[in-house]
Amino acid sequence: MSKIKNIKFITKKYSYKKPFHIANSFATGATNVEVEIETEEGIKGFGEASPSWRVCGETSDSVVSLLNKAKSILNGKDIERYSLIFKEMSSFIFSPSLVTAIEFAVIDALCKKNGIRVWKFLGGNKNEIETDKTVSISSVDDMVTDSIKIKREGFNIIKIKTGENLSKDIEVIEEIYRKTKGLRYIVDANTGYTPKEAICFAKKIYSKGIDISVFEQPVNRYDIESLKLVRFNSPFPVCADESVKTKYDALNLIKKEAVDYINIKLMKSGFSQALSIIELALSSNIKLMIGCMSESSVGINQSVHLACGRGVFDFCDLDSHLLIKEDKIRGDFVQNKNIIRVKP
Amino acid sequence: MSKIKNIKFITKKYSYKKPFHIANSFATGATNVEVEIETEEGIKGFGEASPSWRVCGETSDSVVSLLNKAKSILNGKDIERYSLIFKEMSSFIFSPSLVTAIEFAVIDALCKKNGIRVWKFLGGNKNEIETDKTVSISSVDDMVTDSIKIKREGFNIIKIKTGENLSKDIEVIEEIYRKTKGLRYIVDANTGYTPKEAICFAKKIYSKGIDISVFEQPVNRYDIESLKLVRFNSPFPVCADESVKTKYDALNLIKKEAVDYINIKLMKSGFSQALSIIELALSSNIKLMIGCMSESSVGINQSVHLACGRGVFDFCDLDSHLLIKEDKIRGDFVQNKNIIRVKP
Repeated sequence: MSKIKNIKFITKKYSYKKPFHIANSFATGATNVEVEIETEEGIKGFGEASPSWRVCGETSDSVVSLLNKAKSILNGKDIERYSLIFKEMSSFIFSPSLVTAIEFAVIDALCKKNGIRVWKFLGGNKNEIETDKTVSISSVDDMVTDSIKIKREGFNIIKIKTGENLSKDIEVIEEIYRKTKGLRYIVDANTGYTPKEAICFAKKIYSKGIDISVFEQPVNRYDIESLKLVRFNSPFPVCADESVKTKYDALNLIKKEAVDYINIKLMKSGFSQALSIIELALSSNIKLMIGCMSESSVGINQSVHLACGRGVFDFCDLDSHLLIKEDKIRGDFVQNKNIIRVKP
Repeated sequence: MSKIKNIKFITKKYSYKKPFHIANSFATGATNVEVEIETEEGIKGFGEASPSWRVCGETSDSVVSLLNKAKSILNGKDIERYSLIFKEMSSFIFSPSLVTAIEFAVIDALCKKNGIRVWKFLGGNKNEIETDKTVSISSVDDMVTDSIKIKREGFNIIKIKTGENLSKDIEVIEEIYRKTKGLRYIVDANTGYTPKEAICFAKKIYSKGIDISVFEQPVNRYDIESLKLVRFNSPFPVCADESVKTKYDALNLIKKEAVDYINIKLMKSGFSQALSIIELALSSNIKLMIGCMSESSVGINQSVHLACGRGVFDFCDLDSHLLIKEDKIRGDFVQNKNIIRVKP
């Protein structure tokens, strides 16, 4: 038995190295909440919540406001009975980022207690993953310059943000393709297109002989019918991001045959529901990618261990710690360019 | 790292204490195959396959015939990378009982290596479960006598086999109810009814004021439309058993809204797919029960640890080890009447 004796929340502010501009959203920084749980024997587990106002309606203040609730529910709970803790966490309906931070901290502490590495506890599928790097929205020239730089840094996959201007987006993709041939591309419209714009985008890009590996969240998050329309009219695989937070969202998309891919982000679903979504996807021939909000290396660590443990993600978009200013990497992994490897 | 160095299959024959008669099937004994894996450090893990010819087309001979295949795939594999082993096991398409025995043996060895109890590795939800006990088909008098005996033995839930004779089945349920009032009942027709018979059965029993907790597999396993018809016309929850072997079967039933319950049996799905089916059911408000084939206590142990670890089963039908002649209980649990408790 290993009872939780204390829970701490620590708020940390980060600035982006460069303002992060996606369709209809612009960020210069992020405030995350680190969670530390400690057991009676003094074992500590760590997690990080990176709340997303845009996607989940959470803020760092709303996360912090739940500290007393978290303490009242978790203090005295045995981390070895982690499924009971996961069940309790399902009541934190509007704070999935906090759910992840707490659930991961519990698993982290449990694994430390038992001398197991988290990624091995989760299945030990692989000890390294490849991540893409993201180009946020700016001028065509800036986006091309950023892409060339990303290629030079050693990345093989570029995620390109679009969704504010169809004709400019098509130009951007063409130019980036011309200057970085040989790479793979994920295009993320962050809900920015109408269904017809999205189909037009996909068909035009396809007609130019450019391959897009994943076309992410082309349309409104609640418009599942249009997501399906785009899927059935796009030569490229269509992925839901904003449309999938919970496992119930995932099941609904599966029932409606609306997507080829689901982008799991621990900050949208919670950790235990991410495990559920993986099983749903693998049971229905839906492919998976894993993404992030504005996690520091502490939060990215959570996704890295999940991705290595389960080995089920075709694409990993785990680059937020590279886009913010962070004094030192505190994750339990080593990064070499595009490769993230869990420590042995 | 803990590499598998050897795998042994041991065939064991068991007799039923009393012939086991269900709709259109009659058994006097069972032949199971125990699996022992051993790592290079000498850690051993144990599992048991109880193949079902009727449900899965497996025999003990067909299981044993796969020994060389299992060795060629598993020898040298690291049990700490268990997700890779689970992935390999998915190629044993026609031998789910063997998949379970091997997958569980791997988890058993992994947990021994790390000094964790299997049920805690799986979530540690509860340390005991309640099982029902089964009355197989015979004369009305015999079935009533068996039910009274089961009640005297301390069981609160009786599973009653039906499906061969509608009018006699209704009489049996009435008589058992009259003589064992206060208990709960699961009725299992094992695919024996036509859809109209099944609906007639449910409505007649309901009209007599008798409550059935679960109405299991009323109709043909492949006739999902009829399963749905029964579900929508039965006052009692309808459960799929023979209709669900794989996670793909489970998803199909969920999409078609065909059932209220799924009966997971490790011998139908394999261990890792049972974990998937749990997530599918919990994402779609389907309830779960866990059942068995003809496992000895070695095989029942597998389901006990899953049921305690996850804590998601509304009903546990884990009684085959009580119905066969077994010299001693070898499972890692203690049974007191209807309560099965994992050892501390």
